[in-house]
Amino acid sequence: MPALKKFIFTTAELPDSAIHTLTTLSNGFISIRGVPELTETSTGTFIAGVYCDTPLFYRELVNLPRVVSLYVRLDGVPLVPSEEVFTLDALRGIVEYKAKLVARGGYLEYTGVRLVHAKRKEVVALRGKLVSRGVRGRLTLDLPVELNTCNPSVPENICVKLYRVVEKSADSQAVRVKVVSADQRYSVEFAAGAKSSRAALQAYAAGERVGFAGEVEVEDGSVVTVEKLVAASTAGEAASVLNAALNMDFNQLAASHSEEWERRWRELGLEAEGDEEFVDALYLNTFHLLQMYNSELPFFALPARGFHGHGYRGHVFWDTEIYALPFYLILKPEASRKILMYRCALLNAARYNAERNGCRGAQFPWESADDGFEATPREIPLDLRGERKVVIRTGELEHHITADVAYAVWLYHRYTGDDEFISQCGLALLIETARFWASRFEYDSSKGKYVIRRVIGPDEYHVGVDNSFYTNLLAAFNLQLAASYSRQAGDQPEGREVLSQLNVTDSEVREWERIAENVFLPRGADGVWEEFEGYLSLEDYTLPEGCIGEACVPEDVLARVEKTRLVKQADVVAGLFLLRHLFSREELSRNYEFYKRRTTHASSLSIPMYAGLAAYIGKLEEASALLRTAMLADLKNIYANTGDGFHVGSAGGAWTALLFGFLRLEENRGKLTVAPVLPPYLRRLRLTVNFRGKRYLLEVDGKRASIKELS
Amino acid sequence: MPALKKFIFTTAELPDSAIHTLTTLSNGFISIRGVPELTETSTGTFIAGVYCDTPLFYRELVNLPRVVSLYVRLDGVPLVPSEEVFTLDALRGIVEYKAKLVARGGYLEYTGVRLVHAKRKEVVALRGKLVSRGVRGRLTLDLPVELNTCNPSVPENICVKLYRVVEKSADSQAVRVKVVSADQRYSVEFAAGAKSSRAALQAYAAGERVGFAGEVEVEDGSVVTVEKLVAASTAGEAASVLNAALNMDFNQLAASHSEEWERRWRELGLEAEGDEEFVDALYLNTFHLLQMYNSELPFFALPARGFHGHGYRGHVFWDTEIYALPFYLILKPEASRKILMYRCALLNAARYNAERNGCRGAQFPWESADDGFEATPREIPLDLRGERKVVIRTGELEHHITADVAYAVWLYHRYTGDDEFISQCGLALLIETARFWASRFEYDSSKGKYVIRRVIGPDEYHVGVDNSFYTNLLAAFNLQLAASYSRQAGDQPEGREVLSQLNVTDSEVREWERIAENVFLPRGADGVWEEFEGYLSLEDYTLPEGCIGEACVPEDVLARVEKTRLVKQADVVAGLFLLRHLFSREELSRNYEFYKRRTTHASSLSIPMYAGLAAYIGKLEEASALLRTAMLADLKNIYANTGDGFHVGSAGGAWTALLFGFLRLEENRGKLTVAPVLPPYLRRLRLTVNFRGKRYLLEVDGKRASIKELS
Repeated sequence: MPALKKFIFTTAELPDSAIHTLTTLSNGFISIRGVPELTETSTGTFIAGVYCDTPLFYRELVNLPRVVSLYVRLDGVPLVPSEEVFTLDALRGIVEYKAKLVARGGYLEYTGVRLVHAKRKEVVALRGKLVSRGVRGRLTLDLPVELNTCNPSVPENICVKLYRVVEKSADSQAVRVKVVSADQRYSVEFAAGAKSSRAALQAYAAGERVGFAGEVEVEDGSVVTVEKLVAASTAGEAASVLNAALNMDFNQLAASHSEEWERRWRELGLEAEGDEEFVDALYLNTFHLLQMYNSELPFFALPARGFHGHGYRGHVFWDTEIYALPFYLILKPEASRKILMYRCALLNAARYNAERNGCRGAQFPWESADDGFEATPREIPLDLRGERKVVIRTGELEHHITADVAYAVWLYHRYTGDDEFISQCGLALLIETARFWASRFEYDSSKGKYVIRRVIGPDEYHVGVDNSFYTNLLAAFNLQLAASYSRQAGDQPEGREVLSQLNVTDSEVREWERIAENVFLPRGADGVWEEFEGYLSLEDYTLPEGCIGEACVPEDVLARVEKTRLVKQADVVAGLFLLRHLFSREELSRNYEFYKRRTTHASSLSIPMYAGLAAYIGKLEEASALLRTAMLADLKNIYANTGDGFHVGSAGGAWTALLFGFLRLEENRGKLTVAPVLPPYLRRLRLTVNFRGKRYLLEVDGKRASIKELS
Repeated sequence: MPALKKFIFTTAELPDSAIHTLTTLSNGFISIRGVPELTETSTGTFIAGVYCDTPLFYRELVNLPRVVSLYVRLDGVPLVPSEEVFTLDALRGIVEYKAKLVARGGYLEYTGVRLVHAKRKEVVALRGKLVSRGVRGRLTLDLPVELNTCNPSVPENICVKLYRVVEKSADSQAVRVKVVSADQRYSVEFAAGAKSSRAALQAYAAGERVGFAGEVEVEDGSVVTVEKLVAASTAGEAASVLNAALNMDFNQLAASHSEEWERRWRELGLEAEGDEEFVDALYLNTFHLLQMYNSELPFFALPARGFHGHGYRGHVFWDTEIYALPFYLILKPEASRKILMYRCALLNAARYNAERNGCRGAQFPWESADDGFEATPREIPLDLRGERKVVIRTGELEHHITADVAYAVWLYHRYTGDDEFISQCGLALLIETARFWASRFEYDSSKGKYVIRRVIGPDEYHVGVDNSFYTNLLAAFNLQLAASYSRQAGDQPEGREVLSQLNVTDSEVREWERIAENVFLPRGADGVWEEFEGYLSLEDYTLPEGCIGEACVPEDVLARVEKTRLVKQADVVAGLFLLRHLFSREELSRNYEFYKRRTTHASSLSIPMYAGLAAYIGKLEEASALLRTAMLADLKNIYANTGDGFHVGSAGGAWTALLFGFLRLEENRGKLTVAPVLPPYLRRLRLTVNFRGKRYLLEVDGKRASIKELS
């Protein structure tokens, strides 16, 4: 069991919204941000997969009714919390919230404990305790399910209610609500029960609330506890789930929940010793990555900001496959399979996307919601009238996501050996994505090469470029994968069936190989890969050492950034790290050095790739500093937008850098190899590595490393 | 004093939203919809002139914080009203609201009385009384100012908060809030006080509320009263206004408020006897038209749906000058002057509009907010993603509003003789609008006439037509007015100064006359004016007798309505009624008969013009039926959208038809003439007519009419 201390957050150290993200609880079905129960808010509940049509953002996760509120009045007057302290007990998956409710005569000491049950996926439980310190009078306790939540839009003045209440009732035992998404695709039921040690709570249904309320007299020293249980169901089972849960008290539910969490931590075998902040962040990120996975769902649609906030609207980006997947792959491989199953489920939509864009095969959308169609906003208004707008072209032009999915299939198969997945869906993903690229490449006779014109690479400063190194490299790799997997598939009956269903012919496979072997990769002098064709003829600008973000770029340079060699994030570096086996160490180093002075790291996806590559090429000191930044991104709110949600890409990317850059896990002809180094601030690291159905205990300290198979 | 009964509305007869419109209270500064104080709602407060940038609608009236709420709990449990009865005492300007709050043991009988003070424009007062019928326990009374109101947008899922709270405080006497519009143009302060007969109320500030709350024990028969006073100020005076008001109790405030209302009714001298519904509607409409006028403001920006709802977003249309102005002109002439002052204040914006559209002079916007620029939405989304949209071209093409403003100047001057207004602004309005038309007309040499291409007339079924009869007619009249007023202005020093400031030359005046005399008005055979050039060559379709609205038009006809002769509303008929002195009675009759069979009356603006013209040409029976429909539009929710706000055009238009069609008021060489007939359902009508600074008592009954000057 890791020496996992409780995380204590206070508003003195972090903005409220960042704390609410960091204390979000999820079981991969229900997710609830850590907004305190005592405070009115429009922040409600996410249910995995429940999206709705929405302005600007195509479809987004619906901000469903708020279920955790507990409002307190003294002699009728609403009380407001102060001196708030939030504690995340990541070992047990529980959030504790303490606050003072100052009132006449003294204050009430409030302690709330909440959980989103790790095993009973439909259940949320809350226990609140109030202790009077000098306060006398009558307390009103109100425990509603609130039906007035809405999705904040852009500008922030706009809120969009994406559900409609279709049923609402209260009886002595429970209150119930049924809501339907505004586009009618999903319905969700909620049922809630509540009880108190001393107050007689009564169920009610009133306006935009159902709930329980009651009153209780308090004297100095009085203790009042209250428990609230909520069940949510997309299968019409909220009432029966609630009834079953109501037979247990909060302690019983908390015990079974915490047991499950302890089991999970044991399973990971993760132990880290060293710099406290880094270790904290490692555990915190691991907790958040773990809690979003729900083994009971057919796939794992993991949004770029988790289920932790409205950032990127619950959309899935390449962050999932390229940055987050390796963590699950090594530590929780069944979750990584379900990440790929999400793309499998949406393969037909990807075919439609390709066709609509005049291509063949399957094109995955840059941003993906529940239906697999392109969900990237086209423009974002900057003012209320929508007269000034930011135009967003990534949905139209950022195509590498399709190759990233193929890359993830390959990575998954290498480390799991899961042949069944390949024949079930992986091969189809490789083939259909390759077909997209085969139709997307054009033959440039002047170059004698295949080229891709007009894309956005990972570096989004440069829009509509030709021959993006990253894109062309990954696309060529995608074609190679499709060709080699198709050739191998011919050897087994399952594989042959896939090839036959998809009408893959030998000549098509040869075409993929021919294109892949003749892809144009723009190259400068001195072994530097050109980020895209013509990049090196742009105005040069190099950043001061240690600069992160755009703050250190002069405004006038930023204003013409697309005309300079500045890049927003790891791009060539990302491609080199992902396909490091294809490049010499010297080549990796040279490009790393070149681009690091020209990268603003304005995206949180940048640093992890730099960290990974730096570690891989042996620049341990730089790598360690970068890794620390990536790992601490949310714990320290480094990008100042943790409030919008958990940075899945940063947390996963830090793990990726650790696994592949520092520990240097590598599949080699079916065997696992490691060549670990640790950052200097880490004394010891231990974890269970999953590889091809087996589990290995990897232990590293300053002096030595060991890996042994677990029985 | 009119025999003005109280209006009693129940939800059995009308939708809630229509009742909320009909029980809206306003003093022309503060306006509050009749949403009951006991019910949570996002409907807050309008302050005249406080608009903000907004999605789709350019700028709209800000839905400011809600100030009238009074929430009740029993033993902590929220109570919900039932058996609601709303009473508008239009004689005294007070709304009474009764409801039952059913609770354990029986119910609480609630009676609320509210007013928006007619003289103390910054003051809103509410008194609530609760009587226990069998209920025992502790009541919580909560009287907040709620800071979570927002402007509902389209689709209705979207709400936009158009203000920001910048200050919030509570002390023992009062709670205070200061808000600023989201675009920073306006700030509004609110201060509130509250007291109760039995509960000790305590001020609080909590989350999105400030307010007063407290508890009280009740037994069967207990009576609890509570009073809430709110002051609102755009001049930073809310606190001092509140302090002054707090020295008075509710009864004193209600007395001074009611005295003012009784004085207003006495001033009007309005008495009507006859059909109860018609008389009710006449008084009701008169009340709503009266209450919106605020003599303390420099101008009277009267929105098409009043301050009664979000319909048309607080925008001002031609409804104001053409439909509503005559009521004020005859009954409250200082209000009609301030209606014109609104256009005066925005003359520079109108000059900008003209210039932007490649014209000269001043072009008033089809929809006008607080800044005088075009505020018509260009498209309205039909779904959440905004993929399906209704395109609205009236902002671009419906130009007659500019001539309507000039017409209103003429009407105002004829009936008031207010020469000072003419030299202060009226003449400038006439000149600048004429300049717009002079640049908008083109000379068509094949016709030897001046033509206007590509407009929308009042009939919005036909978009982008050439030579709209109404538009060309009113534009020609505008040019004539400018010419004749300019010629007369040359005789006085004030007039000469205006002409000199605006650089009006003799040759320009002659050009206006030349164009006006040679305007092309499309004419069919048989003396029927063609609604626009080519109209009579469209497919004919005649409606069944007595058909109102589009429901009686077959769907396939409606789908190609722009290809038929169907018109949405009075168009040629409107032009003829407005300028009836220019046409023979035979011509008026012929066109009335032709168009009445082809008009769907899908706009509430249609029937009043038909009623007026029918009465004017002596078709008393038809006219009376039409007048009844126009007058009852809101009382009977005839257009099923009274919930969106009060139909200013319909109420004002019914009055216009009554004054000019039935009573046949007419200015004739500086004298007032009348030739009254009454609809058969009206036994007697009496009112004070204002004409050229004098007041006349007009009395009409079935047998005779009299008019005498009042001293």
